[in-house]
Amino acid sequence: MSEKVFKKISVVGTSSESYEKAVEAAVAKASESVHGLAWFEVKEFRGGLGRDGSIEWQASVEVAFKVD
Amino acid sequence: MSEKVFKKISVVGTSSESYEKAVEAAVAKASESVHGLAWFEVKEFRGGLGRDGSIEWQASVEVAFKVD
Amino acid sequence: MSEKVFKKISVVGTSSESYEKAVEAAVAKASESVHGLAWFEVKEFRGGLGRDGSIEWQASVEVAFKVD
Amino acid sequence: MSEKVFKKISVVGTSSESYEKAVEAAVAKASESVHGLAWFEVKEFRGGLGRDGSIEWQASVEVAFKVD
Amino acid sequence: MSEKVFKKISVVGTSSESYEKAVEAAVAKASESVHGLAWFEVKEFRGGLGRDGSIEWQASVEVAFKVD
Amino acid sequence: MSEKVFKKISVVGTSSESYEKAVEAAVAKASESVHGLAWFEVKEFRGGLGRDGSIEWQASVEVAFKVD
Amino acid sequence: MSEKVFKKISVVGTSSESYEKAVEAAVAKASESVHGLAWFEVKEFRGGLGRDGSIEWQASVEVAFKVD
Amino acid sequence: MSEKVFKKISVVGTSSESYEKAVEAAVAKASESVHGLAWFEVKEFRGGLGRDGSIEWQASVEVAFKVD
Amino acid sequence: MSEKVFKKISVVGTSSESYEKAVEAAVAKASESVHGLAWFEVKEFRGGLGRDGSIEWQASVEVAFKVD
Amino acid sequence: MSEKVFKKISVVGTSSESYEKAVEAAVAKASESVHGLAWFEVKEFRGGLGRDGSIEWQASVEVAFKVD
Amino acid sequence: MSEKVFKKISVVGTSSESYEKAVEAAVAKASESVHGLAWFEVKEFRGGLGRDGSIEWQASVEVAFKVD
Amino acid sequence: MSEKVFKKISVVGTSSESYEKAVEAAVAKASESVHGLAWFEVKEFRGGLGRDGSIEWQASVEVAFKVD
Repeated sequence: MSEKVFKKISVVGTSSESYEKAVEAAVAKASESVHGLAWFEVKEFRGGLGRDGSIEWQASVEVAFKVD
Repeated sequence: MSEKVFKKISVVGTSSESYEKAVEAAVAKASESVHGLAWFEVKEFRGGLGRDGSIEWQASVEVAFKVD
Repeated sequence: MSEKVFKKISVVGTSSESYEKAVEAAVAKASESVHGLAWFEVKEFRGGLGRDGSIEWQASVEVAFKVD
Repeated sequence: MSEKVFKKISVVGTSSESYEKAVEAAVAKASESVHGLAWFEVKEFRGGLGRDGSIEWQASVEVAFKVD
Repeated sequence: MSEKVFKKISVVGTSSESYEKAVEAAVAKASESVHGLAWFEVKEFRGGLGRDGSIEWQASVEVAFKVD
Repeated sequence: MSEKVFKKISVVGTSSESYEKAVEAAVAKASESVHGLAWFEVKEFRGGLGRDGSIEWQASVEVAFKVD
Repeated sequence: MSEKVFKKISVVGTSSESYEKAVEAAVAKASESVHGLAWFEVKEFRGGLGRDGSIEWQASVEVAFKVD
Repeated sequence: MSEKVFKKISVVGTSSESYEKAVEAAVAKASESVHGLAWFEVKEFRGGLGRDGSIEWQASVEVAFKVD
Repeated sequence: MSEKVFKKISVVGTSSESYEKAVEAAVAKASESVHGLAWFEVKEFRGGLGRDGSIEWQASVEVAFKVD
Repeated sequence: MSEKVFKKISVVGTSSESYEKAVEAAVAKASESVHGLAWFEVKEFRGGLGRDGSIEWQASVEVAFKVD
Repeated sequence: MSEKVFKKISVVGTSSESYEKAVEAAVAKASESVHGLAWFEVKEFRGGLGRDGSIEWQASVEVAFKVD
Repeated sequence: MSEKVFKKISVVGTSSESYEKAVEAAVAKASESVHGLAWFEVKEFRGGLGRDGSIEWQASVEVAFKVD
């Protein structure tokens, strides 16, 4: 059979800059352990609030990659 | 009767830069075929992952416009 | 083949009276552009609040119609 | 700009055989009015039950197509 | 007992620039009336569309803060 | 900056007549403690059933108001 | 032990007048077969659309009743 | 009054062949105890996995029937 | 055919002690009227608050049982 | 008019013992600032994990109270 | 203690034939890397649409397996 | 960059005693294969029902841990 199959892993990325940077951090980390990254789905956006008013942007994503 | 009525169309915009740009692409395309754009609702954020590590930001939105 | 097919359009009706009137406004507007209306599904009830205490009832519905 | 944009339409297909046939009916009907079909998302599976015990398989899908 | 307790308030921030700015506006306003801000959860992203094509980014968040 | 910010409070209104009256009761109560009411979102419709067959219509809404 | 226990049954009421009448029809029917009705929860509002423009209001509710 | 009323019962059908067969098993069993079956809604698709690699297709459906 | 079929009933159990006791009360009551109990799914946890500060733990569960 | 109205506040309680204790902590804190507590709804159960293997049970609840 | 524990992995299977084949592809791939497969839950059904009108059935499932 | 990243794994714990014990079993098993456990989110509570009336409490959780 020639059906393609993908697996998805759940990753939470964080950034002090933006949600896009938080997603990029998550994807970059995922790429260290798996190959064939194909797409991702944002599951939740949250954020941490520091005493100094700083914001930590948090992106919870599911990253899909092709398995051979 | 003077009730206002709106219709919503479902559009998916993409961008290589950010989710805001992806939304703007969706809204810009919607504005080509309908008038009276009023608001939009984000339904999903996803993304495509290229072999070179690039990210395509994808925003699925419902765009509402007033109908006469 | 003889399978029936329906399409659904998303419409937001408003009324100063009730949710039923808001739905009716949405359905009436839908009937101007498509034929064969079959059913609708309420997706959300909201409302606008005027400075004078008035309420604008807002009904977001998906209206289904048969396509030939 | 070179961002791709897609639109999604909501279609309900039916079949006396299976959910796959119901989806195919929906997609076939969508292809009559729009071009560039790209993917679809199943939103709901339901069914009608006849007096004679027959089943009408009903698939509610959102069909996405590329807009130029 | 030494259990920590948090309360959450629901705030909608807006910005003409980005969702991050809209969230920051919401958090900044929350910080005017409560102390001990700890985290926030994004509940919805929407947007307003002006006649001139401008976009008002709207972020609905729940902001949590520690209560003594 | 001139970003607008809104807060939302959660209110449950009841009525022996209809859901619209239940919503109005909730909005009226909200207006006693906050100003600048802007919109509301219906979160749930329930009802209480009396021994005498009477129905208490219950509307759970989130009421948004502008904060300065 | 004296814990109270309730059961819930799922009923769909219809009316040519309003959602409240549709709910009342559902509750009235439920009261014919069970006693101790306590509350109900609205699960979905839909509607049927006749060829003559008439609307059949449909309310899907879960009706709870106390069991001894 | 002439309002129609339906009840819904929750049934889980299983099959070693397909989801359609699993739904049919659920509907067939429902038809043994109630009359006037009208429609069903699929709530969940799951499956059991045997040690020998076999799959048991499981369909959780709500079956609606008309009550007099 | 040898497909297994299950039915699910919706039960709300209460307890002055814990959610586990509330679930047990629901299951115990279900076992009085049906046989072949197989599993349950928690749908919602709520609670009643007495004037004296007491808590009534309320568990809404769907109890599945095998039908022959 | 004599319609009852309730407000709901969102509280997150924590405990090193159980979810029930976490809920009780949330309710106890709510009772310090408002009167007429009537019921609560569990929105989410989470937990914090310490380096020493300890668990902090976290219950996010909406607490409703009657307003005069 | 003798409590059983399961892990779940997220897999997307595809097939040119049916959803059942797509699920089987996902399960078969999962069985290559883990043992003790016990059940799966369908999370989403989607599909890819080829230029030639072909459909790629896509099933997103969570596959659970027992861990020792 | 110094962004923190977390991964989440999906685990189902069981216990004959309580949901807390079921969660603890899931967390304990997770801690055998990964380090840096940070938090968990309860996704579902279910239960198995034995012929002797016994209950197996089942907790489906997502356990997050920090990755370096």
